Amino acid sequence: MQKPSIPRGTRDFGPLQMAKRNYIFNTIRGVYERYGFAQLETPTMENLSVLTGKYGDEGDQLLFKVLNSGDFLSKSKAEDFESGSKTILPKIAEKGLRYDLTVPFARYVVMHRNDITFPFKRYQIQPVWRADRPQKGRYREFYQCDADVVGTDSLICESEIIAMINEVFTALRLPDFTIKLNNRKILVGITEVIGAEGKEGDFCMAIDKLDKIGLDKVNEELIQKGFSAKSIELLKPIFEFDGTISEKLTFLKDYFSESETGLKGVAETEEILNYLSAYKLENDHLELDLTLARGLSYYTGTIFEVKANGVQIGSITGGGRYDNLTGVFGLKDVSGVGISFGVDRIYDVLEELELYPESTATQVQVMIVNFGQTMTTQGIQLMQSLRNEGIRTEIYPDEAKMKKQMSYANNLNIPFVVMIGEDEIAAGNYTLKNMIDGEQAAYKIDDLISKIKNSR
Amino acid sequence: MQKPSIPRGTRDFGPLQMAKRNYIFNTIRGVYERYGFAQLETPTMENLSVLTGKYGDEGDQLLFKVLNSGDFLSKSKAEDFESGSKTILPKIAEKGLRYDLTVPFARYVVMHRNDITFPFKRYQIQPVWRADRPQKGRYREFYQCDADVVGTDSLICESEIIAMINEVFTALRLPDFTIKLNNRKILVGITEVIGAEGKEGDFCMAIDKLDKIGLDKVNEELIQKGFSAKSIELLKPIFEFDGTISEKLTFLKDYFSESETGLKGVAETEEILNYLSAYKLENDHLELDLTLARGLSYYTGTIFEVKANGVQIGSITGGGRYDNLTGVFGLKDVSGVGISFGVDRIYDVLEELELYPESTATQVQVMIVNFGQTMTTQGIQLMQSLRNEGIRTEIYPDEAKMKKQMSYANNLNIPFVVMIGEDEIAAGNYTLKNMIDGEQAAYKIDDLISKIKNSR
Repeated sequence: MQKPSIPRGTRDFGPLQMAKRNYIFNTIRGVYERYGFAQLETPTMENLSVLTGKYGDEGDQLLFKVLNSGDFLSKSKAEDFESGSKTILPKIAEKGLRYDLTVPFARYVVMHRNDITFPFKRYQIQPVWRADRPQKGRYREFYQCDADVVGTDSLICESEIIAMINEVFTALRLPDFTIKLNNRKILVGITEVIGAEGKEGDFCMAIDKLDKIGLDKVNEELIQKGFSAKSIELLKPIFEFDGTISEKLTFLKDYFSESETGLKGVAETEEILNYLSAYKLENDHLELDLTLARGLSYYTGTIFEVKANGVQIGSITGGGRYDNLTGVFGLKDVSGVGISFGVDRIYDVLEELELYPESTATQVQVMIVNFGQTMTTQGIQLMQSLRNEGIRTEIYPDEAKMKKQMSYANNLNIPFVVMIGEDEIAAGNYTLKNMIDGEQAAYKIDDLISKIKNSR
Repeated sequence: MQKPSIPRGTRDFGPLQMAKRNYIFNTIRGVYERYGFAQLETPTMENLSVLTGKYGDEGDQLLFKVLNSGDFLSKSKAEDFESGSKTILPKIAEKGLRYDLTVPFARYVVMHRNDITFPFKRYQIQPVWRADRPQKGRYREFYQCDADVVGTDSLICESEIIAMINEVFTALRLPDFTIKLNNRKILVGITEVIGAEGKEGDFCMAIDKLDKIGLDKVNEELIQKGFSAKSIELLKPIFEFDGTISEKLTFLKDYFSESETGLKGVAETEEILNYLSAYKLENDHLELDLTLARGLSYYTGTIFEVKANGVQIGSITGGGRYDNLTGVFGLKDVSGVGISFGVDRIYDVLEELELYPESTATQVQVMIVNFGQTMTTQGIQLMQSLRNEGIRTEIYPDEAKMKKQMSYANNLNIPFVVMIGEDEIAAGNYTLKNMIDGEQAAYKIDDLISKIKNSR
């Protein structure tokens, strides 16, 4: 008999992990909904014609492909097999697994453009799959939690997203995090100032690695990509200037005296900060990071990333503004701004900092001890009374030894156990045992209910 | 430019559909949790070694298989290709998509048997995939909502499940439904009485079709399968006897005078009904249907199915007791009982009977009209005050024409719109427009909040 296993890079989530994950999902969902985003779900499988070519060559490699049903070889010939995997692939597989939530969202917007009222604010919480090499913190199946507004250029949307980030991490009680902010127009402006116009792609690719490889290596890469020594020299102040957000903006206005695009980026940032001041956040956690680039090429305006300070982990949230979400599907001028919370990393951060509320460790609140047939009816009646009060209750199903029943309650972290004896029934009493402090006393039903409810 | 599409048999769920689906999911989830079930999630992809052979030959055909990553042909030779799909399959695909929630649950129990405290009560709400021919009401991706208790023979679990079914459909306000109950031991007893011992497989297969093909065709099939004319004669009273549950049980006690197994089935049913009476359900919706068989071969005790009366649709919920969940993975004697709610059919039933609460049609509760820059700060401040009260609020992001903003609110069924004019700011007032009755009045902020809250 073969021992069963699960595919590499995938995970089972048992009850305790699910409770913690739901705590994160529900927090994010609650904020998204309070901010007026509505939920969308798209199929797990998408046609490969929709997915292929949207994530670069590497992405195409990492797509999971689903074999056609039935006799999947029926459309392919021996020479397709001889030419290898790439040739035969389109003849045996037409579908792939969702790789991110952005492309399916773009596909949805295009297919439903006549029914959607724009601006369209949608959120989506679903798993995605990537055939990456699994390693610590990197899985082949993981959840994304995205929210996007499309169909408007209003920078209020950017301020809304920053406020949402604040609300989510404040609700999750993360003590120290930084929302790094930048703008692709600022990055374009920098390439203009340093005489490397049109090279913002290479520029972003290089400085995106700053944290990982350091400034010297970044400069080496830039020179390799054809940036002049003078460019590197002119770039220095960008890496060196330190100060508050408003000091940085003042510095940039001077630096960009010759770059209209750069000044546009500064003006956008100022407008967003202006909106944001109306939110009256206790601490906005904001930092203007002029070296923040984000890899994805489709961003065109504000970009942001969140760092959990004091934890060795990459960014836990990211997003930005794009000008052309749906162009690849033939629908032009749909711009928007989006955010993606990295739930798996957030999970690890909360775990490391021990930030989960105690209540996530318990599911069932009350277990009723099973003393066998004659008492079962009483037990079920009490159980239903508690459930009708919204209390998660169960009766131990078997008339097992007391020790076994108690150890079940202990293992499941059930905080209360109720015992019903014959004498007690006669007196209308129930014995409630607090499994945490071991205290035990008899109560009438109403007192029992309030005792349990007040402990939550 | 190719028009994007989604794979046959799959669906996008837009905001309104999601709200309705979440209403069903949350109702079921709430009941499961109140009854002490804890959530489990398993990976979308399982190893084909886990899935294959568990669902019969037809099931193996209907599994979606995922191509191995990278050069998937590397392990296969030309002769594999020549021999066809079945030969090459195991060399190019090792993973498949989840086909139901039962096999992954069994796999989980076996893999984690040393960490699990039994009895183990888990629920699982996840999509499954089947390469069935799509048709009305049958999809290639659909959700299952399962709950199972394993590791106990206690019949309290059966009564718990019947009570859960009652709670779910009562909460969903389904006016008329029937929980059909039977027991595989009763069916075995019948084959013993009619002299067809050991043929309960064929017997169940045949009578499972009673609703579809009628009694004559069922008898024809039985005769084809080698049942004698005398058997068919002895079977008659089972189809003909009509009466209350207790009348049927009395009849069966007589019918089973020679069948120990049959009498065991009757005794189990009586015990379950006895527990159930302690739940004091207003209406238990129960019917003992001696012809209920359920196709799946692994059931060994009580079986049940739910029918929505007055709607042309198959069973909307089903389940039963099995003796050997995990034997196929080498772990013996794990018995249990489970239930599966068919969300897609329940969705259709609620749609047809118009049973969705009005609140599922609205997401955002308040839209604040955007009168442009000078008023934006005021708008954002008000918006945050409402959100802090838990009210789902948004500001229209652009300074668009009033008509456009109002039509946005209308299209999204937003019940309230707030307008902030300069005069009103001076007086500390906000104009609230009720989009349903058109009424419009000015309020101080506290009155505004209670007006909105009380409308929910």
